[in-house]
Amino acid sequence: MKSDLDRLMAERAIDALLILPGENEDPYRVYLSNGVQHSGLVLKRRSEPPVLIVNSMERDEAARSGLAVYTYDNFGYSELARTYQDNRDTITVTWYSRIFEEFGVAGKVGLYGVSDLNAALSTVRILEKALSDRLHFVTEEPRDTIFDRAYETKDPAEVTRLREVARRTSAVVRATRDWLATHRAAGDTVITAEGTPLRIGDVKRHVRGLLFAEGLVDSEGMIFAQGRDAAVPHSKGADSEPLRLGTTIVFDLFPREPGGYFHDMTRTWCLGYAPPEVQAVYETVMDAFRRAQAMCAPGVSTSAVQRMVCELFEAAGHPTVLHSPATTDGYTHSLAHGVGLNVHEAPYFPTFSNRYTLQPGNVFTIEPGLYYAERGYGVRIEDTVYLNEADELETLTDVPYDLVIKLEQ
Amino acid sequence: MKSDLDRLMAERAIDALLILPGENEDPYRVYLSNGVQHSGLVLKRRSEPPVLIVNSMERDEAARSGLAVYTYDNFGYSELARTYQDNRDTITVTWYSRIFEEFGVAGKVGLYGVSDLNAALSTVRILEKALSDRLHFVTEEPRDTIFDRAYETKDPAEVTRLREVARRTSAVVRATRDWLATHRAAGDTVITAEGTPLRIGDVKRHVRGLLFAEGLVDSEGMIFAQGRDAAVPHSKGADSEPLRLGTTIVFDLFPREPGGYFHDMTRTWCLGYAPPEVQAVYETVMDAFRRAQAMCAPGVSTSAVQRMVCELFEAAGHPTVLHSPATTDGYTHSLAHGVGLNVHEAPYFPTFSNRYTLQPGNVFTIEPGLYYAERGYGVRIEDTVYLNEADELETLTDVPYDLVIKLEQ
Repeated sequence: MKSDLDRLMAERAIDALLILPGENEDPYRVYLSNGVQHSGLVLKRRSEPPVLIVNSMERDEAARSGLAVYTYDNFGYSELARTYQDNRDTITVTWYSRIFEEFGVAGKVGLYGVSDLNAALSTVRILEKALSDRLHFVTEEPRDTIFDRAYETKDPAEVTRLREVARRTSAVVRATRDWLATHRAAGDTVITAEGTPLRIGDVKRHVRGLLFAEGLVDSEGMIFAQGRDAAVPHSKGADSEPLRLGTTIVFDLFPREPGGYFHDMTRTWCLGYAPPEVQAVYETVMDAFRRAQAMCAPGVSTSAVQRMVCELFEAAGHPTVLHSPATTDGYTHSLAHGVGLNVHEAPYFPTFSNRYTLQPGNVFTIEPGLYYAERGYGVRIEDTVYLNEADELETLTDVPYDLVIKLEQ
Repeated sequence: MKSDLDRLMAERAIDALLILPGENEDPYRVYLSNGVQHSGLVLKRRSEPPVLIVNSMERDEAARSGLAVYTYDNFGYSELARTYQDNRDTITVTWYSRIFEEFGVAGKVGLYGVSDLNAALSTVRILEKALSDRLHFVTEEPRDTIFDRAYETKDPAEVTRLREVARRTSAVVRATRDWLATHRAAGDTVITAEGTPLRIGDVKRHVRGLLFAEGLVDSEGMIFAQGRDAAVPHSKGADSEPLRLGTTIVFDLFPREPGGYFHDMTRTWCLGYAPPEVQAVYETVMDAFRRAQAMCAPGVSTSAVQRMVCELFEAAGHPTVLHSPATTDGYTHSLAHGVGLNVHEAPYFPTFSNRYTLQPGNVFTIEPGLYYAERGYGVRIEDTVYLNEADELETLTDVPYDLVIKLEQ
């Protein structure tokens, strides 16, 4: 959690964390800025709270963080731009030097954030050349950075937000299920009140309305994929396609509060009835889901849980990434990931390494699945769970698991 | 426009453009992928169409681009991960080498995209060290990159999208204006049908409903700021604040189609009546707006338009960034910016340099403003315009400019 940052910086001998200014959404910046979105620079020295340096137009927004806020012009940015015009190197070096001087930044500086890569790399090269006697920029092993390790556990305020977005997302999925059940079937087609076929685009529109009413944002695009598409885990589904009875639908929804925390969950549904083969695969997936839940406890390696699921699936005759790393049939992905300000964050559950050990404060998905594109089906079940301070695994998602949604003919 | 990329690459002797894999939203990736969102690698060699290399889970989505699509496992990613486990350097070098070999990538490679900076910088350092005999990564001057120069003009398909989002955004703002006018005043307060004060949060909720109905996304958060807040150009407004009569409201809305093109516009309103000082400042801003519109023609330097507006304001007694670069009173920002897949992109209108010359195909804002926080008001007027192929300036925004919205007492 965020309060671990100073300990992590000390352990790794990193003197300061730096996030460069930039306009794009940046979960690192939001995290260090106590939830506030702005486009400024963030600097955190070890054992000191972060400071924000923003365009003066954003000074009011930035102040909501409760942190010390400075403007670009407190370090003379506009005057430098006027004086040196197109001499970007001089402007950059002078401006950053003033900031580093003011806050005593020197030594190992970690660079983070989600940035325009060309602009960031260009700034880094200018500063590395000019300030090499003062500081050097360090990178960390991806998936083992200071931020990964902080994101890995959530503090009580974060858990409150995650519970709330879980509650709202679950309400949307339950309402979607109930709404689908109000439709009737004509043969293998699902029919609206107007007598026309219900299409995936209609369902997505309905879901977006429900999300909107709950104040949630679906910025990355939900998955509502049927049949063969359901077997390609990130295929989002074809809007024009009519819903069919007896076909798997994978509904993966991962919305968030605007600029805030995500929830992530998946249900697999069959309208009307489930073919026996699909029913059997669904039961295998539910079995993996339950066993993974039962295994998740403090001290357990995340890879061990992933491998347990692979072995369970392989014993049932399904190929998995454990022995067929590039398979696109069977179990084709990893079991889980953390959820927070990023929809995917630490802890990760890789098949082939062992960096993460479960601990109280983890919030993560559990999402086994089995996929057979050529047979026209895919099944995935996903909840987001919280390993709480009492070492218990709490399920934050609250939606029935049932495969079949009955329709009247 | 996108068809300029090959010419720009030739002029700058850049052999390939590379966008690293990453999960965050990335307008560069969307641009090169013909509008499709995915999290894969994009590689464009000079005079060749881009190729996409994606996680196999995203292969269907990526194929919608119409471009050649490969999966990570076409270059053995999962096998490498299994074989080399935690040896990330070897995995990275081997995997990228196979890709560069397959597509004959060598020489000067430009790095672009919006990336996790720690991960990207770490990959770049590994590859630069291992592959220095084959290629080197180049950065370009920010605001003058190949992409900046491509974004600077829009092709007809892009203009169609920009017109459509302009039409919908304008409808939302007109509907907001009409809805505000249905309220009545009690003294200096605006009253809802229920007899309670109308608050900024109520207005934003109403606007979000209108945006939703138009299929638009307000991912960055609108500005609806009143009084002193209206004088801090990016202050978003306080939800709990009741609307007051005779006070400036700056309403700046910049939504987009999901994952697509933005529109950007601002109106300043006074409910009930406008105080004479505000009315006079509004007329000065409208004058600057009209004169800037009249000046925008092919061949004109964008800085010349910005300076003309500064001089006009200074002649009327207002401080501006021309002679007071760090001023927070008067005219405190630049006149305009391009609009596309980024809410702010080229052409820019800086005060102190001269990199951009207007040309047919530009789509940009015009947004003069005057701000006086201590006097409790700010005024900005903004349209998005299109300099078309007939050298005419077309206004894409379609909303009345009137300052005062009359209310019944």
